[in-house]
Amino acid sequence: MINVIFLGFGNVNNHLFDALHKSTEITIKQVFNRNYIKMISPFEDIPFTDDVSKIKEADIYIIGIPDDAISSFSSSLPFQNRLVVHTSGGVSMDALSNKNRRGIFYPLQTFSKQREIDFKNIPICIEAENSKDLELLQSLGEKISENVVEISSEKRAKLHLAAVFVNNFTNHLYHIGSEILKVDDLPFDLLKPLILETASKIENLSPEKAQTGPAKRSDLKTIEKHLHLLGNSRYRKLYELFTEEIKQNYGKKL
Amino acid sequence: MINVIFLGFGNVNNHLFDALHKSTEITIKQVFNRNYIKMISPFEDIPFTDDVSKIKEADIYIIGIPDDAISSFSSSLPFQNRLVVHTSGGVSMDALSNKNRRGIFYPLQTFSKQREIDFKNIPICIEAENSKDLELLQSLGEKISENVVEISSEKRAKLHLAAVFVNNFTNHLYHIGSEILKVDDLPFDLLKPLILETASKIENLSPEKAQTGPAKRSDLKTIEKHLHLLGNSRYRKLYELFTEEIKQNYGKKL
Repeated sequence: MINVIFLGFGNVNNHLFDALHKSTEITIKQVFNRNYIKMISPFEDIPFTDDVSKIKEADIYIIGIPDDAISSFSSSLPFQNRLVVHTSGGVSMDALSNKNRRGIFYPLQTFSKQREIDFKNIPICIEAENSKDLELLQSLGEKISENVVEISSEKRAKLHLAAVFVNNFTNHLYHIGSEILKVDDLPFDLLKPLILETASKIENLSPEKAQTGPAKRSDLKTIEKHLHLLGNSRYRKLYELFTEEIKQNYGKKL
Repeated sequence: MINVIFLGFGNVNNHLFDALHKSTEITIKQVFNRNYIKMISPFEDIPFTDDVSKIKEADIYIIGIPDDAISSFSSSLPFQNRLVVHTSGGVSMDALSNKNRRGIFYPLQTFSKQREIDFKNIPICIEAENSKDLELLQSLGEKISENVVEISSEKRAKLHLAAVFVNNFTNHLYHIGSEILKVDDLPFDLLKPLILETASKIENLSPEKAQTGPAKRSDLKTIEKHLHLLGNSRYRKLYELFTEEIKQNYGKKL
């Protein structure tokens, strides 16, 4: 049995809480949050505190708070030599106060309050200062995911950067698509099968092999037509930059 | 029964052929292609020709050739007053020669040779010069898809532009993600669950509500860190442009 305490209860910890709670080999001993949270059914038996001095003892403390606050919050914890991890992709392990044993438990996924998440395939990136703690995090990760990987803070930073490209920026492209359609009263639903297939395609094809479209074909006539349609739209710059990048990327290989 | 002849046999027509062939209410009377194609099992009974003068009579001719060639090819057809459609998102109906009745049968999807496609949810955008032809295309579309919509050439051009953003450019972001990981020997597989969830999320959430990440939060510290990691990489410009766009988009609404 692994005893866990959640420190902070934002999006990531909320989803981790739901997933870990389902495991019979995990006990969630307590939830701490700066602001009061009512634990509702089926979680009403899990103790809550908003008082740092009342945080109990546990095997692993999971910090899930804004990146900027991790360092000072970890320093403010009134105990030492326990395993304290954070769940952020962009913050190095060193940011945690060294009065406790430090670690990382980073689920590489995008979390929104409104969506339930199946952790089974989500990569959980772990890191720790000693092998025993690493084993404990491995074991914690395996309770919810089949994909637990040890990754250093340096590599995790790159992974997080790549995630920004494929998630945050991709989602903004979806937004642009929806805005372009809105002008003509076309429903965004029309694009959804295409969006899903674009993502599904790279399960088995490399993105390089999956690339299609006017920029890849250097189809200047279509590109001209699109630039004309875009006019002075704020999306024009992105169109030009992507087109240039894709043309260069595939042009070289002809 | 609707009789169909395919003119050209690239990616789109290939996939349409497979889908229409499954319908018992469609007869594929012939396939024409400039270069010889051997019709293999289970299609060996479908006549093939590479001679324009030997194209048979049918209810609908479906042109699936490069955009630039559509106009002159349609002029070269040795018959008139029949229904000739093309399958391109970016070419207007007017590009077809007016010696035949003109139409559009545009499946809004990304097609690769290596992937089988289920047409059921794919929007098929149709257009025709008269209501009888429109009905016939509607009926053809409904044999393979539950989502047949009439869309004018002007609106289809916008739809195609939006598709370039959500498909071509998104796929290039996947490529950038894979390149960033490659430098550190991290497997691209790590990003796949995130990519799939990013696409699945907007089934029920608007892209605007689904947006997350440092740019949306105006998290300057993380943005600085990423720019530092990118250094003089060719991906830096895209990072900066997206970040600026997303910051502006969500900043305004605070």
